[in-house]
Amino acid sequence: MAIDTVLPALSALLGDRLSTSRGDRDQHGHSESYFPPTPPEAVAWPETTAELAEIVQICASAGVPVVPWGAGTSLEGQAQATQGGLVLDMARMAQVLEVLPEDMLVRVQPGITREALNAHLRDTGLFFPIDPGANASIGGMAATRASGTTAVKYGTMRDNVLAAEVVLADGRVIRTGSGARKSSAGYDLTGLFVGAEATLGIFTELTLRLHGQPEAVTAAVCAFDDFARAVETVIATIQMGIDVARIEFVDEATAAAFNAAAGTDLPELPHLMVEFHGTPAAVKEQAERFGEIVAEMGGAHFAWAERPEDRTKLWKMRHGAYPACLALRPGSMAVVTDICVPISHLAEAVAETRADIAEQGLIGPILGHVGDGNFHAILLVDRDDPEELSRAKWIAARLAARAHRFGGTMTGEHGVGIGKRALMADEHGQGWQVMAAIKQALDPKNILNPGKIVPGDLA
Amino acid sequence: MAIDTVLPALSALLGDRLSTSRGDRDQHGHSESYFPPTPPEAVAWPETTAELAEIVQICASAGVPVVPWGAGTSLEGQAQATQGGLVLDMARMAQVLEVLPEDMLVRVQPGITREALNAHLRDTGLFFPIDPGANASIGGMAATRASGTTAVKYGTMRDNVLAAEVVLADGRVIRTGSGARKSSAGYDLTGLFVGAEATLGIFTELTLRLHGQPEAVTAAVCAFDDFARAVETVIATIQMGIDVARIEFVDEATAAAFNAAAGTDLPELPHLMVEFHGTPAAVKEQAERFGEIVAEMGGAHFAWAERPEDRTKLWKMRHGAYPACLALRPGSMAVVTDICVPISHLAEAVAETRADIAEQGLIGPILGHVGDGNFHAILLVDRDDPEELSRAKWIAARLAARAHRFGGTMTGEHGVGIGKRALMADEHGQGWQVMAAIKQALDPKNILNPGKIVPGDLA
Repeated sequence: MAIDTVLPALSALLGDRLSTSRGDRDQHGHSESYFPPTPPEAVAWPETTAELAEIVQICASAGVPVVPWGAGTSLEGQAQATQGGLVLDMARMAQVLEVLPEDMLVRVQPGITREALNAHLRDTGLFFPIDPGANASIGGMAATRASGTTAVKYGTMRDNVLAAEVVLADGRVIRTGSGARKSSAGYDLTGLFVGAEATLGIFTELTLRLHGQPEAVTAAVCAFDDFARAVETVIATIQMGIDVARIEFVDEATAAAFNAAAGTDLPELPHLMVEFHGTPAAVKEQAERFGEIVAEMGGAHFAWAERPEDRTKLWKMRHGAYPACLALRPGSMAVVTDICVPISHLAEAVAETRADIAEQGLIGPILGHVGDGNFHAILLVDRDDPEELSRAKWIAARLAARAHRFGGTMTGEHGVGIGKRALMADEHGQGWQVMAAIKQALDPKNILNPGKIVPGDLA
Repeated sequence: MAIDTVLPALSALLGDRLSTSRGDRDQHGHSESYFPPTPPEAVAWPETTAELAEIVQICASAGVPVVPWGAGTSLEGQAQATQGGLVLDMARMAQVLEVLPEDMLVRVQPGITREALNAHLRDTGLFFPIDPGANASIGGMAATRASGTTAVKYGTMRDNVLAAEVVLADGRVIRTGSGARKSSAGYDLTGLFVGAEATLGIFTELTLRLHGQPEAVTAAVCAFDDFARAVETVIATIQMGIDVARIEFVDEATAAAFNAAAGTDLPELPHLMVEFHGTPAAVKEQAERFGEIVAEMGGAHFAWAERPEDRTKLWKMRHGAYPACLALRPGSMAVVTDICVPISHLAEAVAETRADIAEQGLIGPILGHVGDGNFHAILLVDRDDPEELSRAKWIAARLAARAHRFGGTMTGEHGVGIGKRALMADEHGQGWQVMAAIKQALDPKNILNPGKIVPGDLA
């Protein structure tokens, strides 16, 4: 195998920070989703940009694939080395390099998790708001263009990565962007690498925008008899310009999953969970306006979470949705969908999806960051029943087609990875060939996370 | 010349919408800045995407450069056909194609100006906020990644172009992005074409994010004895998270220019001009907080513009800064600089720039969108004095170097064009070669706006 030719050089460089043990390879071969494990041939733990660049040079010399690994929380198998090669575990490049409070910026290494970053920032009055739920690494979040519950107010990783240091496929190191909030100085390379799932370069440093910790925060949960009324409430809230920091939809199945997993006693109805950030007066005003819309739409069971500990409990519950839903059917695995549509089509998209799930007789809770038009169905299938998996995939394919029919996207935040690559032509048409041309230009040997994003043999 | 070989085919396609007359060529050969005119060999007025694609195919067959032209308001000569060829005047592709009020989106053709777009939207309750001052075309604004006075609240063109239709260098037509507010479906092609100054593709349609017309708006002007206190007021305002929709700095020379041009009676001191958008209560609260900072910093001469007509007058005056400054020295022309720095370095950057201008003995008013750290010096030079021009260029080069020293960018919003290309290596290092590789991949014959952005012969 190609890797055999480079192991001596890698070993000389890395010593015991290179492993070919079965255990290390297996640990870096699976994802959180339903894809079969694909252990890499070796795992490395680089510690510096220079070292990582040298690793890439060594691997490039023999055409060995290089796949970075953050926290292993991606949902489309982005970090799986489907064509073998070397996984780069970024755990030893996880430092906060510099906090620039006056500029509301932070420079970090990509291996740091978002929770570790925010713990580091706690006393600065600033925070990094992007919150995909999982305690993902910042590098992984940038690579998949992650977002989550707070994107409706703070944007996605696209909006919050201001600059980067990137190792290219030939081992060159470049810096993209700057500390300026905006620039018109040529192609937006930072924006090109964000969301590229490490197929064009590997992040070794990221400069992130920070935001002031809000003076006041309030959150609430409310319930609706009918999911459509909940979704219409969201649409009205966004269209009226109410400044929500989070606005999450969970359906009755998800509410039941929360009750079972967290011991809560939510009515088993569709819910919205909202949060407001701002000055005390602004938060009060926005929350009141939201309350008026909810009342008009027939929402009820309003519970406000004013105390920090109540909000922590609320969002911990929300972030636990994935395991809670999996627990609805012990031993099952999940096909997780992720479409995002223009908000006017949201109610229709959810309704059609519910009908598909019912028709296929699967358990498939629906929940999502509906302020952006983004929602997920968590389709639970028996691990050992290929026929069930194919039914779930049928629903997922219908969802992607639905997203396109409504002028949206098949993935709002989870990315392409293994699961969505076959659908890229449907989403982008000839644009997929443009992506291929860019990949060919920047990684002609196809060593950076091969088999992802661009056309080629489908793994 | 190469164009002679394609004129018959272009003429057959376009009839009298193709011109090689001296007048039409001259009209499309100059810019608003100091660059020498470079008339193209012909001008075309395409009317449809299909027609524009065919024009590109015809030109590609003979290696004829193609340069789109919007409103001709770019400040770095982006639309100048420095290597000859065909200019595509987009004036006949200037329609609003579809307003989607529920999704807060609009689809437009690129030739429409921002003022025409907002006139069209007036009764929808929505508006397109990006405001570079000039009544630029939307396509030109996207191509240069424009921003302006409102970027501090609403972002730049990067943040507000959601999707595009693009004609590639070989005449293929692709659609990038979608109507969804966010996506993780592969490389961000929309973001790559925005800011590429038509070197990678030509926009034929843009989908823009709209924003709700604010319920309440208030604006104010205040003056400071010392420019540094004005800048420090801005820094404090941003760092405290005060939600400004605009926060503009003008120095004492600019204030004098306004008085001369608009007949106002501003004290000839450094000023801030601010605006707040939101609910009546939120606007009041934010304006009060801003007022407290101004008072602490010793600002005075506070004048509130509560009535729409007063605000119109205020911003018309601000937008007239460029001609007003030019009129400070009749017959002069201007070298306009455009650096953007992390906000903590703003006061120092302005101070050093003032010292440079004084040392060179030029008139050079300073003004800027300081909430983003972006400011301009308008360096007035005698048209017929090459020595003065070289002094202005010396100041401009020092400014770019200063931007880099402070971790910023040499262009916050004007783009690269003719004026900044020689500085791209300083800004991007090896990243400039990455841009070249992308250009080579997408436009191998170098026909799309050649001589801009990427390395090559400097025009």
